[in-house]
Amino acid sequence: MSRHRFFVPPDSIVENRVSMGPELVHRLRNVLRLGPGDSIVLLDGSGLEYTVRLDSLRRHEGEGTVLGRSPCPNEPNLRIVLYQALLKGDSLELVLQKCTELGIYAFAPLISERCVARRPSANRLQRWSSIVLEAAQQSRRAVLPPIQEAVSFTEGCSMAPHPAFILWEGETATSLKRALSAAAIREAGEVGLFVGPEGGFTLEEIERATASGIVPVTMGNRILRAETAGLIAATAVLYEAGDLGH
Amino acid sequence: MSRHRFFVPPDSIVENRVSMGPELVHRLRNVLRLGPGDSIVLLDGSGLEYTVRLDSLRRHEGEGTVLGRSPCPNEPNLRIVLYQALLKGDSLELVLQKCTELGIYAFAPLISERCVARRPSANRLQRWSSIVLEAAQQSRRAVLPPIQEAVSFTEGCSMAPHPAFILWEGETATSLKRALSAAAIREAGEVGLFVGPEGGFTLEEIERATASGIVPVTMGNRILRAETAGLIAATAVLYEAGDLGH
Repeated sequence: MSRHRFFVPPDSIVENRVSMGPELVHRLRNVLRLGPGDSIVLLDGSGLEYTVRLDSLRRHEGEGTVLGRSPCPNEPNLRIVLYQALLKGDSLELVLQKCTELGIYAFAPLISERCVARRPSANRLQRWSSIVLEAAQQSRRAVLPPIQEAVSFTEGCSMAPHPAFILWEGETATSLKRALSAAAIREAGEVGLFVGPEGGFTLEEIERATASGIVPVTMGNRILRAETAGLIAATAVLYEAGDLGH
Repeated sequence: MSRHRFFVPPDSIVENRVSMGPELVHRLRNVLRLGPGDSIVLLDGSGLEYTVRLDSLRRHEGEGTVLGRSPCPNEPNLRIVLYQALLKGDSLELVLQKCTELGIYAFAPLISERCVARRPSANRLQRWSSIVLEAAQQSRRAVLPPIQEAVSFTEGCSMAPHPAFILWEGETATSLKRALSAAAIREAGEVGLFVGPEGGFTLEEIERATASGIVPVTMGNRILRAETAGLIAATAVLYEAGDLGH
């Protein structure tokens, strides 16, 4: 049976005792109609899955008992950090939702020269977090990808793990496929992927990235929208690494 | 310079003469502010690109001259036919848009047992067509992927090209990666991909598919939404075939 899954703050689980807050209790009791004796899966973001029996669900708090804990087999071995430039309107929401389903490890919003979108408001950040949370629960992940604070392109370049790749429509020689092969991606623990805004990266940005050891790559002749490119590139990376079934 | 691109009916181009209808003329004249002497790219869906000089733009019709024609280098070698089960709400729109950008060759909507969505209305079909058209123009394709008439699962199985693969969460042994490798996908001209509705395929459907030579495959442990799975699988197929940069 596939049980309902919820992320909880790490301190909700102390040894075998679980305490649950009002939102989760509401969801369990009023939305899913669960009660004492039913069991669910809780995730503390560490990569472990906790099978939990519900003991009591009062109005504002609930309690449960950990019946078992095991490492979740659903996380990719390769950790992809997506350095995604801010996008217009709600486009970043699609990126966050789909890339979380796919298995991205962390999101690093990037403010690059041609970004039209502004730094996200607190409201928007909260909305982004709940999109990632919902997608992570639904796709049965055990790690909740963090959305890091938005950084400048230069900061992004200096923070990025290696190997790292930057999608650039001006690149004609090196495909992502060749670059992944050259980087022996199956042996890499972590990889950075840089994706530009609607207007793309500037030549200066590409030069700066290259100077930081980030490799400009192409994914062929068709022009992908800014909101699509990261998902397609991340799929290729996980596929190559054997993390979409091996 | 990257010129504006438009699909036109094949009979709009006769030898070097181009005739344009009211919608395209409106777009050129009033939206893009182009006039006689400017040039655009027209596509007749054959895979050729026509560089066209505008000669006259009257209110309801326009004329132009073909300056050059060349095969468009943007189409994948491998033709993917996506047998996508109907989805709830507007979810299929995302599939059509993103898979057109990616490079899908044709869409075959599928009515499978667990489909909640009904056969599309004429209005909806028209909306789908314009989504595909817009995505094909924007991504600089030269082939406009047709949306075939919706067929039953059984019909789909008998129409599918080979090799063909069906995404199934119950498959544990064969990954898409292994199946693509076993099928020598780089040498295949055409491939079928079957993707289920929100509730997945039934065991009977998987058996029927298998009997038709369609291979059930997994893409790993994370659960992708029905609207996401086709795009991810098609990305993997094109990547493997060297059609996302080689």
